[in-house]
Amino acid sequence: MRAGDIDESKWAGRRVLVTGGLGFIGSNLARRLVGLGARVTLLDSMIPEYGGNPFNVAGIADAVRINYSDIRDPHTLPWLLRDCDVLFNLAGQSAHLDSMRDPFTDLQINVNAQLNLLEACRRHRPEIRVVFASTRQIYGRPKYLPVDEAHPVQPVDVNGINKASGEAYHLLYAKVYGMWCCALRLTNTYGPRMRVKDARQTFLGVWLRAAVQKTPFEVWGGAQLRDFSYVDDTVEALLGVAFCEGARGRAFNVGGEAPYALADVARLLAEEAPGARYEIRDFPAENKPIDIGDYHASDAALRRETGWAPKVPLREGLRRSVAFYRDHLHEYL
Amino acid sequence: MRAGDIDESKWAGRRVLVTGGLGFIGSNLARRLVGLGARVTLLDSMIPEYGGNPFNVAGIADAVRINYSDIRDPHTLPWLLRDCDVLFNLAGQSAHLDSMRDPFTDLQINVNAQLNLLEACRRHRPEIRVVFASTRQIYGRPKYLPVDEAHPVQPVDVNGINKASGEAYHLLYAKVYGMWCCALRLTNTYGPRMRVKDARQTFLGVWLRAAVQKTPFEVWGGAQLRDFSYVDDTVEALLGVAFCEGARGRAFNVGGEAPYALADVARLLAEEAPGARYEIRDFPAENKPIDIGDYHASDAALRRETGWAPKVPLREGLRRSVAFYRDHLHEYL
Repeated sequence: MRAGDIDESKWAGRRVLVTGGLGFIGSNLARRLVGLGARVTLLDSMIPEYGGNPFNVAGIADAVRINYSDIRDPHTLPWLLRDCDVLFNLAGQSAHLDSMRDPFTDLQINVNAQLNLLEACRRHRPEIRVVFASTRQIYGRPKYLPVDEAHPVQPVDVNGINKASGEAYHLLYAKVYGMWCCALRLTNTYGPRMRVKDARQTFLGVWLRAAVQKTPFEVWGGAQLRDFSYVDDTVEALLGVAFCEGARGRAFNVGGEAPYALADVARLLAEEAPGARYEIRDFPAENKPIDIGDYHASDAALRRETGWAPKVPLREGLRRSVAFYRDHLHEYL
Repeated sequence: MRAGDIDESKWAGRRVLVTGGLGFIGSNLARRLVGLGARVTLLDSMIPEYGGNPFNVAGIADAVRINYSDIRDPHTLPWLLRDCDVLFNLAGQSAHLDSMRDPFTDLQINVNAQLNLLEACRRHRPEIRVVFASTRQIYGRPKYLPVDEAHPVQPVDVNGINKASGEAYHLLYAKVYGMWCCALRLTNTYGPRMRVKDARQTFLGVWLRAAVQKTPFEVWGGAQLRDFSYVDDTVEALLGVAFCEGARGRAFNVGGEAPYALADVARLLAEEAPGARYEIRDFPAENKPIDIGDYHASDAALRRETGWAPKVPLREGLRRSVAFYRDHLHEYL
């Protein structure tokens, strides 16, 4: 086992539930868990605007149990929790504009359902380990860079407010009830199996699709800094905290290998997808109130605690993503 | 008009809606508004464990419109908002232990209903001014003293998490939709018409009741610092921000005249209520996880912006409170 690698022996035979399991990160995690010999249940609501896609589990569908249900249902999730060792709690509404158009749905999924899940764990399965997918979005517009976990939580949209609540519940239940919960504040995650139909997961999905289709995509602004986590790295971070005792009750940033200006991301993508075209445009005025400027994370705390570090540089991650969507784009349209 | 006094001329004829209007702060505010010539509607759900009490509006019941309804009802509140100039949004679940025992009710009232209210304002009455009663509870255990508004929001109970969300929605709707919203983060508020049956509003209610009944009350710990806002001062702060343009979209602490150790509060109360007895005991172990240690607010921002300052020192406020409950305790048991 090299430094930073997860202890693979921990996972054989483990009963693992993944909410949002047919989605982008959930299905990549599921593939890795199957490889590690875990007994995996994937829960997904298959809401068309979200990330669930049956093709995401092509090749592992027989090696996992798939349970189609919605985390808002008050009874099914508590039932499924009862025999689990680890819960990767990835299901959520993640589209920022959707959270403004329909704040109630975002609230039901990202807050009410999370509380229901935690109460179910507390009552029926208090020894479960819960890893919650939080988001950089809770920080809002950075007051300093890189953003560490002590940065104020000042979200600029309904989604950010609600995800902050969902995370806070997890940490509170760890503190008050002694449960094992941990939150990872994910940055822009990208890679195979992400939604590319629209920008609901990240703008990078739309770019990737356009690059593969050789249609032009737009870069809004271009100077903004962001960091990007290739999904295999994100998966290792999720696995890495789950049996790390020092992670209990804490929230950690997950960042990328380095910050990039959006114009540079577009350039790298175009280099990896010959024929791709893009245009740099002014940032749209109507999106200004929820624009956050530059963002990149300090994930020093996670690295220190678990030995994790991102292994896939952006160029390499884009190359692998382009290769995946060249072969499979029709499954994602 | 002296510095720090509200501009009384602003209120004559104003249509004002107060949620939680038969409660402690709501009814004291209503009395002041009636005196100022405002057209006042009080909305209250009369949930027995909350602050609503018909006696609170004795003497003004004919001068206000009382509407019994619950802010969780999706239709009545939007209807009542339609012809209002100012909304004092005071209704809430405020008992910390209740929020842990029944987190779902706290969430429905302090988050879901707040979002419903703001959406109703945005759609049907975007010009309304909304003053939201937030709470010091959102800060959790202070990292420094006095606590100013830049202090991290790290609540230690479900109520704190939910109130933080409710406040964040108000500030977000101000920022994104240009609505007029302001939040006051109230400290321990006390005075006539508070709930004294139990500690659901503050422990001081129980102390007051015991002091008046000449039964012993318990001081847990005694060294902890707190600040206390006499309700007349709180009411002036609420009125003061409502037409202050610099308050738009902001959250302000409301503190007391000075911090006091709990043992000193008990001593002052006993001096003002001859015959009162109390006992200083160790802080109960089971409450430790949600104990916050010392707290007192910096309300310099509010003072600077509005000229407001507390006028009623703790001893004087306790004296008035004792006098009120000597006459009216039976209405509150």
